[in-house]
Formats: sequence, C-alpha cells, structure tokens
Amino acid sequence: MIRMAGYHFGWWDAAGTVTGDRPGKALRSALTLGAATACGGSLAAAVPAAAAIELLHGFTLLHDDVMDEGRTRRGRPSVWRVWGVGNAILAGDALYALAFKVLREYLPVAVAHEAIGRLTAASLELCQGQQEDCAFEQRSNVTLDEYLGMAVSKTAALMGCACAVGALCADADPVTVSAMDRFGRELGLVFQFVDDIIGIWGDPSVTGKPVGDDLLRRKYTLPVVAAMSSGGDAAIELASLYNSPDQMTSADVIRAAALVEAAGGRHVAEQYADERLAAAIDALPHRSTSAHLLTLTRVARHRDR
Amino acid sequence: MIRMAGYHFGWWDAAGTVTGDRPGKALRSALTLGAATACGGSLAAAVPAAAAIELLHGFTLLHDDVMDEGRTRRGRPSVWRVWGVGNAILAGDALYALAFKVLREYLPVAVAHEAIGRLTAASLELCQGQQEDCAFEQRSNVTLDEYLGMAVSKTAALMGCACAVGALCADADPVTVSAMDRFGRELGLVFQFVDDIIGIWGDPSVTGKPVGDDLLRRKYTLPVVAAMSSGGDAAIELASLYNSPDQMTSADVIRAAALVEAAGGRHVAEQYADERLAAAIDALPHRSTSAHLLTLTRVARHRDR
Repeated sequence: MIRMAGYHFGWWDAAGTVTGDRPGKALRSALTLGAATACGGSLAAAVPAAAAIELLHGFTLLHDDVMDEGRTRRGRPSVWRVWGVGNAILAGDALYALAFKVLREYLPVAVAHEAIGRLTAASLELCQGQQEDCAFEQRSNVTLDEYLGMAVSKTAALMGCACAVGALCADADPVTVSAMDRFGRELGLVFQFVDDIIGIWGDPSVTGKPVGDDLLRRKYTLPVVAAMSSGGDAAIELASLYNSPDQMTSADVIRAAALVEAAGGRHVAEQYADERLAAAIDALPHRSTSAHLLTLTRVARHRDR
Repeated sequence: MIRMAGYHFGWWDAAGTVTGDRPGKALRSALTLGAATACGGSLAAAVPAAAAIELLHGFTLLHDDVMDEGRTRRGRPSVWRVWGVGNAILAGDALYALAFKVLREYLPVAVAHEAIGRLTAASLELCQGQQEDCAFEQRSNVTLDEYLGMAVSKTAALMGCACAVGALCADADPVTVSAMDRFGRELGLVFQFVDDIIGIWGDPSVTGKPVGDDLLRRKYTLPVVAAMSSGGDAAIELASLYNSPDQMTSADVIRAAALVEAAGGRHVAEQYADERLAAAIDALPHRSTSAHLLTLTRVARHRDR
C-alpha cells in the first residue's frame, strides 16, 4: 500500500522507482502553510496539518477515480487501473486514517481536537458533494443552484478546511479561523470553476487528460450547466448531445465545446471565477501578512493544469 | 446516504421502510460497553465509543463487500448491489468520518484523544489485513502463519480496539487498557475462527449466506489452510479443487467441505478457537466485574451466525 500511495502522490512509478515525474500541485497543503504564516504562526507548526490535508485529498482522489472511472491521474494510469479497484479503495482508506493519525500525534492536544473536528466535517461534506456529482450523471438536466451546491461540498469545503486548520496551528482566534475558512471556500470555488474551464478547453499536453475530457464524459460542469440554462438554440443542441445514448465522437466533443462557448457558458464560468476571487480576497483576515496566500489565489485563477 | 447507512445497519429496507429485519450482532459495540462496566465505568459514558466502533465496523463491511464482491449481507443484497459501487464506497467513507466525529464530540477531550489514537491504529491494521486477505485470492497456497497474521490484522485489531476504548471511557489506567486490548484481540481470533467454521458448515437459513460460501469463493480460511498443510491425500485433492480454473459446482463445494474435515481442518479450527478463548479469559483484567464480557466470550464461541 505504501507503493500505491507513493505512486498516487507522484513520488515513484508503479515499480517503486523514483522517476522525477511531475507530482501533484499540492495547492491545498500550500494553503494550510500560507494561512498559518498569515496568522503569525510558524511554518513548522503547521506542517502536520498540511500533511493531513494532503493525505485527506489523496484519499478522495483515489476513491473518486474508482467511482468516476477516471482512467488517468497526473498523466499516468490511475491506481485502480494499475492495482485493481480493491487496492485503490484500501489505499484510500489507509490515507484517510493517516490524516487523523498525523493530526493527533504531531499537533498539541487542543489544536488537534479542533483540527480533527474540521477534518471530519469537511470529509462529510466531501462525501455529500461527490454523491451529488455522481447522481448528476443520471440526470438529463442540472440547475445552476444544484451545481453550485455540489461545488461547495465537493471542492470548497476542503479548501476552507485547509485554510482553517492552518490558522488553528497559529493559535488564531475563532473569528480569524472562520474568516480563513471563508477565504478558502471562496478560493475553492475559483479553483473548481477554473477546473471546469480547463476540463473543456485545457491543453491535453499540459493537463495530462484527454481533450474535452469533461464533455466526453458528459459531466455537468459550470460552463455546461450555464450554457444549457441559457435557453437558445445552442443550449437545445447541447442538451440533445448530452442526452443522446451514443458514445461521444471526437467531432461531437469539438461541437459540444463550440456550443458551450456560443451559449455563453465559458463567459459565465470566467465571470463567476473572477467574482469568487474578489470575494476570497475580501474575506482575507490579515491582508498585510498574506503575500503567500495572495500568490496562491493568482495560481488558482490563472493555472493551466 | 442516510438511507444506505440505515439499510446497511438493518434498520429499514431499501425504500426506507422499517421492516423489523434482523440487524447485525453488534458484538463489537457490546464489547466496548462490557469493557467499560468491567472497569467500573458507566454504560452512558461509553456509549459514544460503542457507537464509533459500530460506525467503523460498518465502514469496513461496506468496503469489504465491494472488494470481495460479497453479494449478500445479513440475508439481504449488499449496499453496492442496491445502490452501486460508488455509493457503497461513499457511504463507507461517511461512516468512517462519523466514527471520529462521535468520539470527538461526545467524549471528554483527553479520552477522545486516546480513543482517536486507538481507532486510527486499528483502521490501519484493518486495511493491512484486508489487503492480505484479498492478496491470498491470487495465491495457490497460504501458510498457517500468513493466515494468522491476516486474522490478527483483519479481525482481532478492531475487537481489541473496541475493548480498549471501553476501558478508556471508564478512565482505566494504561495497564488495564492494554489488558483489555489483549482480551479483545484474543476474542477476535476466536470470533474469526468460528466465522471460518460457519463459513463452511453454517446453516444458510441462519447465516443468511449461501451454503459453503467461503469454499465457493475459494477463500483461504483457517480450516482450509490447516487442511492443506496437513499433507495427506485429502489435502492434495483439496488443493487441486482450489487451484482449478473452473467455477466450483455444488458437488465440488460438498466434496471440498468433506475434504477439509477429513484432513483435520475443522478439528484444528475448533481447537484453535478453544485455545484463544482460554487466552482471552486469562487476559481479562477484572474477572469479578466482567460477567457481561464473559457472556460475550460464550456468544463469540458458540454462535451459529
């Protein structure tokens, strides 16, 4: 299981050989460290919380790839394809346990107590969000509100948690911890909306995923949901492509991307991302000490993978 | 997910209607409560820990049924068959988070801290044990030592944890907590060995599982491993049935059960169960206040489901 976990984190290949492959972005753990220093804490004191966030995130990706039949992760076959579904579930379960273990063993008792509360609450929200996302796949239509509720649970909750536990490690007061949670949640929405844009218009050589991957899998992402709810001819044609029983061809994917753009879906997603970015920066409790966090907001908004 | 969890626990049917169906045995949570009262604590103080143990156990069963393709649980279709693999994984993940949430919110901080340490350690052992058990299925032979190591991790660890957290809720000293862990682990082995016996010779109308289910699935359980390592003709024929590429027929299952018995596998399993039962009772730290725990040892040894 150590082999699988290290492979999943991009540390080595399936044989355990260190390859210098590109690891994950580690954005969530960077948020934890950034929040800690913004609140006047040390980096060292927040490292266990940052590790726990990365472990929890790794757990969700391992299980999500099984549920979504995600075939690639960071440009390589996902763990379930290399070692089977059972092992991918188990490796995820083990990372989940390790997240709590790290918090408990390496943080002061009172801080661990608060951090564990944040992680359990975020975990439950993540389960809820993933459940909604999976349920969308059986649907012929998803409203903007339904999509936004899912995005808050599936993505924003963990980013909020990452920032809140960073603040906890700096012994921040409850008002500051809540503000950091708010900041992380707003940034999480930025991250998700940008993810949705990349999922349609991203460069496969940069993302490590097939072109138009989200369209091929008929996912209800923000650009798609916004386009479908726009009501014009492009929306109708897009809905008919999404509700066809046939496998999408490459031509269908290109056509769907053009329809989403024509129906204003891309524009809405870009606009929403900018709005949540402004809201995130507004929520920041300690602007003057938050240079690292402000850098991360720019990374979240302007990344290409 | 609440619907799925309650169905899994036997509280209602798939439509959410309370049916009075037979719920689980709840042996592990009974051990927590029994250990707490044996150590002079109140039942009420141990209820959160008992609930957490049952949640953790529920999580492992949900995921195990996916990994093992276990089609029935307590005489009904398992959750993945009713709601799909993705939902079964998610419901398990949610129960796991709830286990920690319950400990954290309903126990005093210092007790919760210790209990969370026990639960994370047990979780990692459970993952290890399940991983070994699944890996056995690819093997043409398993030694007794390998089997016993797997049984300690997969079953004994959680039973030890159940007893230890009960003692923690009674503010027992560390020596007593360790002794309760020992007791629970020995009893866990009894439980597993009896499970293995029932898995071959149990009455389907009582167990809720098909006749000879473990043989049909070619599982390496104690009677099978002991029989195969006995070295006689029956052992050789049994090994050839296990290593045949063909699906086992009903006649094969009946033949395999007879071979296991002829090679002494059933006798060894009964003997091992009696030995671990004696060791469990020896390990009990407070014999005079342990009437409930002693009752549970008899249940574990003489149950038929």
